[in-house]
Amino acid sequence: MANWIWYPGDFEIYHGMRQNFDREERGFFWPAYWHIADCRRHVVFHGAFAPDRETRFRVTAKGIGHVLVKWQAEAPEWFPKGQVFYQERKYRIGEWITCPAKEIAVDVVLGNRTGLPCIYVEGEIICSGKDWTVSDFIKPAVPVGYNDLYVRRGQDPQEFEYTCQSCSPVSQEERNGGILYDFGREITADTLIHIDGTKRPEKVTLCYGESRAEALDTELCYLKQVLDIPGEAEAAALTYRTDSPFGKWDTGRCYHTRLRAFRYLFIPEKEAASLIRPEALYKYVDFPKRSGFSGSDELVNRIWNVADTTFRLASGIFFLDGIKRDRWIWSGDAYQSYFINQYLFFDKDICKRTILALRGNDPVMEHINTILDYSLYWIISLENYYNMSGDLEFIRMIYPKMESLMRYCMEQTDEQGFLYGREGDWVYIDWAEMDKEGTLCAEQMLLARSYEAMAAVRRLLGLGEEEFVRKKELLLSRIRRFFWDEEKGAFIDSYQSGRRKVTRHANIFAIIFGFADSEETGSILENVLLNEEIPAITTPYFKFYELEALAMLGRFDVVMESIRSYWGGMLEQGASTFWEEYKPGQPEEEQYGMYGDKYGKSLCHAWGASPIYLIGRYCMGVRPTSAAYDTFEAAPQLDLFGHFSCFFPVGQGTVWMDWKDGVLDVYTDKEGGVLKADGREYPLVPMQHVIINRK
Amino acid sequence: MANWIWYPGDFEIYHGMRQNFDREERGFFWPAYWHIADCRRHVVFHGAFAPDRETRFRVTAKGIGHVLVKWQAEAPEWFPKGQVFYQERKYRIGEWITCPAKEIAVDVVLGNRTGLPCIYVEGEIICSGKDWTVSDFIKPAVPVGYNDLYVRRGQDPQEFEYTCQSCSPVSQEERNGGILYDFGREITADTLIHIDGTKRPEKVTLCYGESRAEALDTELCYLKQVLDIPGEAEAAALTYRTDSPFGKWDTGRCYHTRLRAFRYLFIPEKEAASLIRPEALYKYVDFPKRSGFSGSDELVNRIWNVADTTFRLASGIFFLDGIKRDRWIWSGDAYQSYFINQYLFFDKDICKRTILALRGNDPVMEHINTILDYSLYWIISLENYYNMSGDLEFIRMIYPKMESLMRYCMEQTDEQGFLYGREGDWVYIDWAEMDKEGTLCAEQMLLARSYEAMAAVRRLLGLGEEEFVRKKELLLSRIRRFFWDEEKGAFIDSYQSGRRKVTRHANIFAIIFGFADSEETGSILENVLLNEEIPAITTPYFKFYELEALAMLGRFDVVMESIRSYWGGMLEQGASTFWEEYKPGQPEEEQYGMYGDKYGKSLCHAWGASPIYLIGRYCMGVRPTSAAYDTFEAAPQLDLFGHFSCFFPVGQGTVWMDWKDGVLDVYTDKEGGVLKADGREYPLVPMQHVIINRK
Repeated sequence: MANWIWYPGDFEIYHGMRQNFDREERGFFWPAYWHIADCRRHVVFHGAFAPDRETRFRVTAKGIGHVLVKWQAEAPEWFPKGQVFYQERKYRIGEWITCPAKEIAVDVVLGNRTGLPCIYVEGEIICSGKDWTVSDFIKPAVPVGYNDLYVRRGQDPQEFEYTCQSCSPVSQEERNGGILYDFGREITADTLIHIDGTKRPEKVTLCYGESRAEALDTELCYLKQVLDIPGEAEAAALTYRTDSPFGKWDTGRCYHTRLRAFRYLFIPEKEAASLIRPEALYKYVDFPKRSGFSGSDELVNRIWNVADTTFRLASGIFFLDGIKRDRWIWSGDAYQSYFINQYLFFDKDICKRTILALRGNDPVMEHINTILDYSLYWIISLENYYNMSGDLEFIRMIYPKMESLMRYCMEQTDEQGFLYGREGDWVYIDWAEMDKEGTLCAEQMLLARSYEAMAAVRRLLGLGEEEFVRKKELLLSRIRRFFWDEEKGAFIDSYQSGRRKVTRHANIFAIIFGFADSEETGSILENVLLNEEIPAITTPYFKFYELEALAMLGRFDVVMESIRSYWGGMLEQGASTFWEEYKPGQPEEEQYGMYGDKYGKSLCHAWGASPIYLIGRYCMGVRPTSAAYDTFEAAPQLDLFGHFSCFFPVGQGTVWMDWKDGVLDVYTDKEGGVLKADGREYPLVPMQHVIINRK
Repeated sequence: MANWIWYPGDFEIYHGMRQNFDREERGFFWPAYWHIADCRRHVVFHGAFAPDRETRFRVTAKGIGHVLVKWQAEAPEWFPKGQVFYQERKYRIGEWITCPAKEIAVDVVLGNRTGLPCIYVEGEIICSGKDWTVSDFIKPAVPVGYNDLYVRRGQDPQEFEYTCQSCSPVSQEERNGGILYDFGREITADTLIHIDGTKRPEKVTLCYGESRAEALDTELCYLKQVLDIPGEAEAAALTYRTDSPFGKWDTGRCYHTRLRAFRYLFIPEKEAASLIRPEALYKYVDFPKRSGFSGSDELVNRIWNVADTTFRLASGIFFLDGIKRDRWIWSGDAYQSYFINQYLFFDKDICKRTILALRGNDPVMEHINTILDYSLYWIISLENYYNMSGDLEFIRMIYPKMESLMRYCMEQTDEQGFLYGREGDWVYIDWAEMDKEGTLCAEQMLLARSYEAMAAVRRLLGLGEEEFVRKKELLLSRIRRFFWDEEKGAFIDSYQSGRRKVTRHANIFAIIFGFADSEETGSILENVLLNEEIPAITTPYFKFYELEALAMLGRFDVVMESIRSYWGGMLEQGASTFWEEYKPGQPEEEQYGMYGDKYGKSLCHAWGASPIYLIGRYCMGVRPTSAAYDTFEAAPQLDLFGHFSCFFPVGQGTVWMDWKDGVLDVYTDKEGGVLKADGREYPLVPMQHVIINRK
């Protein structure tokens, strides 16, 4: 079997640019506002073979170039004795090339000004795969990039292959002089507008909505397109496709829009709507169902299912933030998706694709997404990815980019070793009022965690970890000295401003990264986490970390209550996917707004799916205790539910747990597991049930 | 009037990649084998206006994005007092936008994954031009790039607009069972194969040749294409264009190939040839005729004219090396073209386009074209360009790239300050046997000249020149100490190899850069330039410098004899354009070969056009004596010709000279000129003839 091959990382960088250019709003586009890396346009692939018989091969390529074949041949007289003479010949891409049974070196020189230079080499002996190398005319050749999704000649790695499903509206109703179609659930889909009859409307206006209210608001809905319908004669002549970035005519009887996220479609012209038939071509990546949860609390079950739906929608080629908006790849959002993925799809490839697309190329030009903290999450994510996957090949490949980004961050630390924002850097952390004057405590927590990740990864690669172990220790002692406020019993945002403001964020990091000692931990729990005077977290994004901290401290009472009230609160407001932001008590007419835009809020946002992780990792207590789940544990909190039934991935294996009538039944197909329940440990033997009867 | 605008340099970098991907050979492509820079894909344009009345504008763009308009507005209550409040709104590209009579800031956010992001803004007050700035999300905004070729909305800066001329064969003859068409002269043209009649051939093979021999060699000709002709019915259905990189069907009756360089076209199938009609669509840039020369020596007149033809063909968007091959942009070749251009078209824009395309982007990744000397020529060319043009705006824009390339070179100097080649660097200088062990003298001469150019340009920009003046002086003294061989009375190639080999190259540079003192000069003239034991120069490329050196030393006898024998020798071999290489006495069957390829030699090569420069600069003695010809001189060598009539550009003006029957008549329309003749100087007053009667 042969693979399509390319410069490593370039497939992801190429599709990353497409993704980051994919935001649409009210008839215009909004490419992401940071430097977006581009793939190489010009590379040479190298393969080496020693066929034992005459053999032939053919190169298929995206781009222009040629094939240079060298084989060992009898030296001509003028050639220095004792050296190997190679005969060299150039061939066309696409032609079958026959080689003798000799040492063969194949170079494929390729340029592609508008896309991803990549090749597919097929032959009995000579074919393309991960043993090829590639160079970009600057650096020495490196092993090629490839993806097991692309293994056939007829494929095109420039197009990501989605699974498609045709959807019709589940209901329609007359509203405001038009027709409102409901597709039953939110989807990311191309819209097909079919004109089945002989009578043709002149114009069809498509108003989309994640909510009914949005679709019906023909002035302010976020996604809208007006189609001018050609007449019968003109339509008949439409043998070509009139492309625009917004869509094209498949035929004179079917207009095919670009992909959009919506549940509702409103056509304000009733007469026009009666002449057309809308269809949605739902496009998605068919990730496996590697986990499930159902328990005695129906609300929690619904939350689990809606989180599953939300996360599947927001996971495509890459982990996105939201499916209507921004459709960009954000490192902080992706960082949480890696965790959720670990408890839902356990798909390694989407992690790698997202990591590569986020990072782009060296040299580092600016922080990932321009955000200081997002560079740090990216660094930390590599250690997390290894712990989940044990994929050392990828870690080895990406390491140079990890180190260059780490050093880029280290260049902007002050005399205390604290990371500061330079002009143009965004010091984000969360949508919250924080005291960002001077260096910010939460950033230093992430920096310390990054040093720790660097040390861990360097240890894995045998590179020597001392520099980063030392840096982490020194930084933690400085953080304590400058940011810990004895009186408040908490970390403050800024020591330079003099305001000594306490927010939850740095304190949460201190807990989840294990940087707080037991005394500090107790103090943070009391003075910050359980202190209602400290402003509440308003984004599901930071709820993730807050609830993780509380779960780590055993406060499952607060965790479950929060899940029920916060995520349950969204369900009460009619959510069928989880939102970017939720402020309990916000008036209904404001609940879809954000960024000063009435429908600016994303109603299907990946970071809303964290209950998957919180339930799997903490309530059910499933986690690796060594890389790739070589060893793992399941430590369910049996008191949280009257009964539950669940399963979770443990590396390539699965663990199943059933709790009912005081009996826990745990089963796994994977070696290395331990069950922890009621303060005791039970080894898990593959294919054997462990049954604990509490009664 | 509005201009299309883009990120400065990106138009040239975009077209530079197209150009460097444009080499075709025997049915395949050969993208240049170095790192080729790519344009930015994602930029924001900024314009600021203060209309005195309501006004509207419209943005046209290549790419996707939106228009963000901010205008000063009444501050809402919550806004801090005393600060200017801007109202902000996003608009679609393509829509008319109305603005009030207030301070207006316009941002156009644009992405273009496959081409050059560029915009055209039209409006009575708000329109695009050189006062806009642009940023790439990394560096602070800079003034936009623009080109006065692109000033209309309907244009597309992604396509360079050539002048086109339809050419039919001037003759055709039956040869080898096929038809050989002669287009009368070499051209760069798309080939149109028309099928006028009802009978259609099945297949047409196109064999191209710069020479008759090449076109008739159906096996080995460099450019060849086999067309499968669709049948009548299939052709009728060809309503779409079946694109391939080699050509397309304009209609079912006309196949349109890509641009190729040729004079002869051979179709080996006589029957097929009788059913088609070939047409050539000659594409060129219509550079002005700013000079002319005709004198008493008919051979020199022919050489001038053939050089003019050669140079026009090789000058398009950029200065190319050769028009059949490589069609790439080479810095060393371009360096000579700048000089020839100064005496033929005096076109500044092609210089700037070539300089920008060659240099690409920062950071420097490798030497220009991978060649050490070619980086240095690029640096030197900036001083030369300023001296010709006085274009300080361009020098200011390009200076950061000049300095970064200079410093890149300085990083690879040894303890003596000598530049050495690193792995992957090509130490070229010329196609000649040179002793390249250790550091090479000729490279050090170019390095010293580069330091001089840096000093000159920094002086112009008021940046302080001392560093480079010192570096130049120190380097020259080291060159003397290590490379001057007292015994041989010449500079040697290498002092490290111990071979002390003398070639012409470094010695020629010592003369033309003015680095040799009078004693060394005399010694070089005798021991190298006039010494037949030193291997002769075989490329027109280095003949350029050799003859320049001899002309500077007043040896016009040798210069004219060389021009007549060397360039005249090519004419005797049937050349209608000048060649890449010429070895007098080479057997006819070998004369088109190079690089081990029977037709590998380029028969229309820019560096063959140097007689234009040698005649203009030295024989006719026209040169600027201050930047942009503010002052200039004409110092014709009257004894070289019985009579001559010529004109040359002197900046935006022209100088005309007529010499006949012992009377010299000089006339100019430009201030600042001096005539030097017979050891005397005569001021040239615009619109007045200066007449010198020698009799």
